[in-house]
Amino acid sequence: MNRPFHGGNLAWAAAFANCPLESILDFSASINPLGPPPSAIAAIQAHLGDLKAYPDPRYQSLRQALAEFHRLPPDWVLPGNGAAELLTWAGRELAALETTYLTTPAFGDYRRALNAFNARVVACPLDLTRVKSSNPAGSDLLDLSQGLDLALTRSHSNQGLLLNNPHNPTGALFGKQDLLPLLAQFALVVVDEAFMDFLPPLTDQSLMAVVQDYPNLVILRSLTKFYSLPGLRLGYAIAHPDRLQRWQQWRDPWAVNALAIAAAKAILQDTAFQHQTWHWLPSAKQQLMQGLGQLPGLIPYPGAANFLLVNSQSSSSQLQAQLLKNHQILIRDCLSFPELGDRYFRVAVRTPTDNQRLLTGLAQVLSA
Amino acid sequence: MNRPFHGGNLAWAAAFANCPLESILDFSASINPLGPPPSAIAAIQAHLGDLKAYPDPRYQSLRQALAEFHRLPPDWVLPGNGAAELLTWAGRELAALETTYLTTPAFGDYRRALNAFNARVVACPLDLTRVKSSNPAGSDLLDLSQGLDLALTRSHSNQGLLLNNPHNPTGALFGKQDLLPLLAQFALVVVDEAFMDFLPPLTDQSLMAVVQDYPNLVILRSLTKFYSLPGLRLGYAIAHPDRLQRWQQWRDPWAVNALAIAAAKAILQDTAFQHQTWHWLPSAKQQLMQGLGQLPGLIPYPGAANFLLVNSQSSSSQLQAQLLKNHQILIRDCLSFPELGDRYFRVAVRTPTDNQRLLTGLAQVLSA
Repeated sequence: MNRPFHGGNLAWAAAFANCPLESILDFSASINPLGPPPSAIAAIQAHLGDLKAYPDPRYQSLRQALAEFHRLPPDWVLPGNGAAELLTWAGRELAALETTYLTTPAFGDYRRALNAFNARVVACPLDLTRVKSSNPAGSDLLDLSQGLDLALTRSHSNQGLLLNNPHNPTGALFGKQDLLPLLAQFALVVVDEAFMDFLPPLTDQSLMAVVQDYPNLVILRSLTKFYSLPGLRLGYAIAHPDRLQRWQQWRDPWAVNALAIAAAKAILQDTAFQHQTWHWLPSAKQQLMQGLGQLPGLIPYPGAANFLLVNSQSSSSQLQAQLLKNHQILIRDCLSFPELGDRYFRVAVRTPTDNQRLLTGLAQVLSA
Repeated sequence: MNRPFHGGNLAWAAAFANCPLESILDFSASINPLGPPPSAIAAIQAHLGDLKAYPDPRYQSLRQALAEFHRLPPDWVLPGNGAAELLTWAGRELAALETTYLTTPAFGDYRRALNAFNARVVACPLDLTRVKSSNPAGSDLLDLSQGLDLALTRSHSNQGLLLNNPHNPTGALFGKQDLLPLLAQFALVVVDEAFMDFLPPLTDQSLMAVVQDYPNLVILRSLTKFYSLPGLRLGYAIAHPDRLQRWQQWRDPWAVNALAIAAAKAILQDTAFQHQTWHWLPSAKQQLMQGLGQLPGLIPYPGAANFLLVNSQSSSSQLQAQLLKNHQILIRDCLSFPELGDRYFRVAVRTPTDNQRLLTGLAQVLSA
């Protein structure tokens, strides 16, 4: 069977490990292990009757809820069938420009969306040494301009920039102040903030607060990682209303299903779950980071989000295979990131118990 | 508030009628009133746990289930986030051709998908007089070539054809034998069979059985009209594997949500519900057809699917407004079909009791 290009491909993993899908302990998809919140499941169950009708093609109540959450006008918000669906249309707009600068290593689906419309892509490699020594929890944010030397040396009036913040798979966090000058330079800047909500509001580096000042900025957000609902498909774009209206005329009118609407409205109000997540993550991440650092041949990178990139002396795809076969644990190899290749893997931060299972499994595999 | 361009916009209707959304009796969306089948809801409830994981991006089990249902190889099937999502990609392929022939009046979303990629469209008007006198239940199927005189007079080696069968909003049924010559003529033929499953297998005019002989044929299917799950979003395309693979590289990898997968697998096996629907429709349609024909100034067209087009001497938008205000009944005006305009409306066939409520409401409004 072909290897998957994305984390979370449990069908592949279960077949490979020869076990039921439910037995796989999944560190490959960066999903909050505390969820889904009961509020989401309750909302879905209460709204099964909504399936009988078409969703409102204007998604007025959902846009209103998202807009209130971010204190923005509703027409600056467009919900989508996962952030990936909206990335397709961002890719189409980037492809209309002369070139698109893409920070690398890059989440595989960026290439898909850019290639779908034949975009001309210029890779902007991040300096992994700098990522390794950055401290995303403190003031030492990564200055993106370090990785964009190429980009910053000339004019970009007809060029686009696509990056994610926090960066996947390195976990690097770009400082908001460092991104602002890029908005003045590029014709279109698409910032995928799929993992930004894992940072508590006061420490995040989101561009949400300035989006209304920049008609050339698109922010992509996911609701399914933080709230552990990737099977439901729900993301949204924040951008100038003219742009979002254009996207709506490109795509079909009912992109978001009725249960995703119901769940979204419930979880945005679930402040208890939000605080629980912000409380869990720092210590669980520290535990995992320390544990990984103590294993022979592994160097974990500091990460701002809910996953860690790990540099490995031995082959990551072999580690992955052994963890699957012997421990039914799935880690994310980095073969789909050509800049990283077989000496890196990525793991989600899970509960302390799960994290310990991973550390124990890795210790056994590495000492075998 | 702006008028909706599609049926089933209950948010608009409820606001207009100043009543709760649940109070609207919806004849505007052509949804099976017998559903959703309990098998679908049970499958969704049993699979809420699937929401925690990404759907399999290859959708292997779903493709397998759909392929078995149609006795086709799985790689000839691509599930989508509703047929409308797949129409987007069909529109992109049609737009790459010199021109696309579109049977009119045409379902509004066809224009959206064609315009999204700047397709050059040639309208092929159906002869409404012929539709009115056709008999879709019998041998007198509509010969599409009558409406395609323009198209048939010259070569179409670089041209596309987009139609639906049964046709929406007229309900006309094109004979399968009349469509086959068009497949030899056009570079790409997209047949939207969204309502074909309302015809029992032995009487339908689907091109499913010949699809493997025509790499230039795309069949679009919906699962949400027959099974009353438009809020769930689930459709599929049947076409040559090379074409479907290309579409998959254009769109995001997780287009279909996990609950739609679970529901689809259950309903495809629900033969009891299928037979119940095929049993309900003919007599309920006859009741509605006869009742409409007895009302002053209304001429219902014979329809092969689960809806009827009605020609009206008085303004349909006024009828719609009065039915909403006085009876909380929503019919589909035809203002979004320029060829029909304000002298036509469309109604779904519902249960005998609902149909009678519509007939009573119409009688009152027409005699007021």
